[in-house]
Amino acid sequence: MNERLIAVYEVPGPAAEAEKAALAIAFEETVEVPLDFPLPPAIRDGIVGRAGPVTPLGGGRFRVEVDFPAALASGRIGTLLNLAFGNASLWPGVKLVDVRWPGSFLKSFRGPNHGAAGLRALLGVAGRPLLATALKPGGSSHAELAAAAAAFARGGGDIAKDDQNIVDASFLDFRSRVSRIGEAVAKANAASGGKCLYLPHLSGPQEELEARLDFVLKFGLRGVLVCPAILGLDEVRRLAQSRPAVFMAHPAFSGAFYADRSHGIETSFYLGTLMRLIGADITVFPNAGGRFAFTPAECRAIAERARAPLGDLAPSLPAPGGGMRLDDAPGMARDFGPDAVWLVGGRLLMHPGGPEAGARAIREAMANIV
Amino acid sequence: MNERLIAVYEVPGPAAEAEKAALAIAFEETVEVPLDFPLPPAIRDGIVGRAGPVTPLGGGRFRVEVDFPAALASGRIGTLLNLAFGNASLWPGVKLVDVRWPGSFLKSFRGPNHGAAGLRALLGVAGRPLLATALKPGGSSHAELAAAAAAFARGGGDIAKDDQNIVDASFLDFRSRVSRIGEAVAKANAASGGKCLYLPHLSGPQEELEARLDFVLKFGLRGVLVCPAILGLDEVRRLAQSRPAVFMAHPAFSGAFYADRSHGIETSFYLGTLMRLIGADITVFPNAGGRFAFTPAECRAIAERARAPLGDLAPSLPAPGGGMRLDDAPGMARDFGPDAVWLVGGRLLMHPGGPEAGARAIREAMANIV
Repeated sequence: MNERLIAVYEVPGPAAEAEKAALAIAFEETVEVPLDFPLPPAIRDGIVGRAGPVTPLGGGRFRVEVDFPAALASGRIGTLLNLAFGNASLWPGVKLVDVRWPGSFLKSFRGPNHGAAGLRALLGVAGRPLLATALKPGGSSHAELAAAAAAFARGGGDIAKDDQNIVDASFLDFRSRVSRIGEAVAKANAASGGKCLYLPHLSGPQEELEARLDFVLKFGLRGVLVCPAILGLDEVRRLAQSRPAVFMAHPAFSGAFYADRSHGIETSFYLGTLMRLIGADITVFPNAGGRFAFTPAECRAIAERARAPLGDLAPSLPAPGGGMRLDDAPGMARDFGPDAVWLVGGRLLMHPGGPEAGARAIREAMANIV
Repeated sequence: MNERLIAVYEVPGPAAEAEKAALAIAFEETVEVPLDFPLPPAIRDGIVGRAGPVTPLGGGRFRVEVDFPAALASGRIGTLLNLAFGNASLWPGVKLVDVRWPGSFLKSFRGPNHGAAGLRALLGVAGRPLLATALKPGGSSHAELAAAAAAFARGGGDIAKDDQNIVDASFLDFRSRVSRIGEAVAKANAASGGKCLYLPHLSGPQEELEARLDFVLKFGLRGVLVCPAILGLDEVRRLAQSRPAVFMAHPAFSGAFYADRSHGIETSFYLGTLMRLIGADITVFPNAGGRFAFTPAECRAIAERARAPLGDLAPSLPAPGGGMRLDDAPGMARDFGPDAVWLVGGRLLMHPGGPEAGARAIREAMANIV
């Protein structure tokens, strides 16, 4: 119980209220008893969180810290989420912005199986961003999706992932679709000498996730797209830890944690740090200027946390996407540098020359800049 | 593709913006392509959601409906969440308030294993609410928690659940703690002729959940407390479907979906309907007047949806809690009627006469009213 874990929050003011909020969180997340509960000294001193400094942030908001015994998080992502934002999630205006943990906490996590360097080795790509696309629209035939993926590979694309809306009614449909697209990409790679990866969307009943993942890997594909907010963060951690596959994390359903910026979890902590902790080799997020309300600073912060030193964990590659246009290359290069995945979906697929020309156009734009 | 599923949202106005939002959701959640993407007619007519009526709600907010092919939800909770609130979760101000599905969608769900009637049969209790408490504070010894649980059982309590903050560092600790508390409650039941249930908190690494649940059931206990927002909703559905246990759902970490009422998911849909769909026999929520910002109307709506007809699914019992006092009995009876679980934690445990007297006091208050 000697090591400490510090959770950092933003809460509503004034200062006296912020202080009360920190104390409430410290109690709520550990012993959850009324403040006048007769706690034994060993629990009051050894278990209850300690409310730390209160710092004004402007706009009536304050930053507070709560310091917990690190052992209460048990080196587990689910336990950490429960400790730092279990009941605290129920309070309006409370936002978890960061957690500072001891090195021992990180030792329980393997993080990304491949990470930035591993992905570059798999793809044989150095010194430039990776180019990804999303296979869509939903409702397309397997043959149409396969043709788009193959064309993207021929055009020099690195990663063709299923759109997260692509779901299969049965394991049989999943196998048939994944095989068809996987074969098409393999054939395109064989013809071009390329190494484009196809990452199918791993979804479906929880009972089948492992079998579906095994099918993907036995088929010769290297990884999958997952939606951790839907599957459960520890479920993704479990899958990633059990199989040396590439995991690309999509933010579907996680927006409730940060769409309102005055509550929930800081985008860079959720989409950067937490996704990396559970093993995301690539973390997808909505780029500024696309269809979602992310600011350039927020996007840079996500990328920063995906790649910054974090114990022995490999860096994740940030993948800005969500309505990216073909002429965004200079901005993408400036904002994210070479260690990023440019995720261009609809606009690449609807290039007048098709997905092959779309991929080629972006690779050329990339070459002119980076 | 003939059956339809209708998702109902609240979005920001004015009306023209609300209409645009509905159209954006209809596209985003199905095909996720730019509005000018050349969609084949079969996809445009058969896959893309259809934006429906826009109704003003006051306060600059509007209610919109989006009508999807029901097959896109695949009769799966994860697929439903992705369809109705996957990328839509990323838009500020968008709140999912309801989903109307065809009867066929519900046929894939078993719902609560026991439900209201099954719990009453297990406990031999008719015509009055059930009384539950939370074992705490964290940091107490196994013996202390066991003593509190046994005292609660002697006092006439029905359900002693672990506090959701009670976690165990290892499977060994879990077994030792659960055995100790389980034995104490069994002994108290044997002496009193009571049937008090002990529900341990099922948490820990995802790899061990099943084995921990099996241990609980083999030990002779009837069920567990789970935090579905942490474990994953479909993971809880899977566990509940695979074993005929009692599942009590706790809202930890789910607050981000509704702490800000202008975004996320309607409390009654999340805590009432969704929890029941995944198999919660009991759904815990913060009662009005406690430590959290729920209104009486919201709490009644959660209880209503937990118990209202829903295909062939058994009703869940609503469990208002979160800072309940001993003198709340008249309000609890008035707001929730007999088909509810009164969850009284800290104030029951700190009764001057101990948990036995605390349980007895509430059972007496209950008897005088219901």
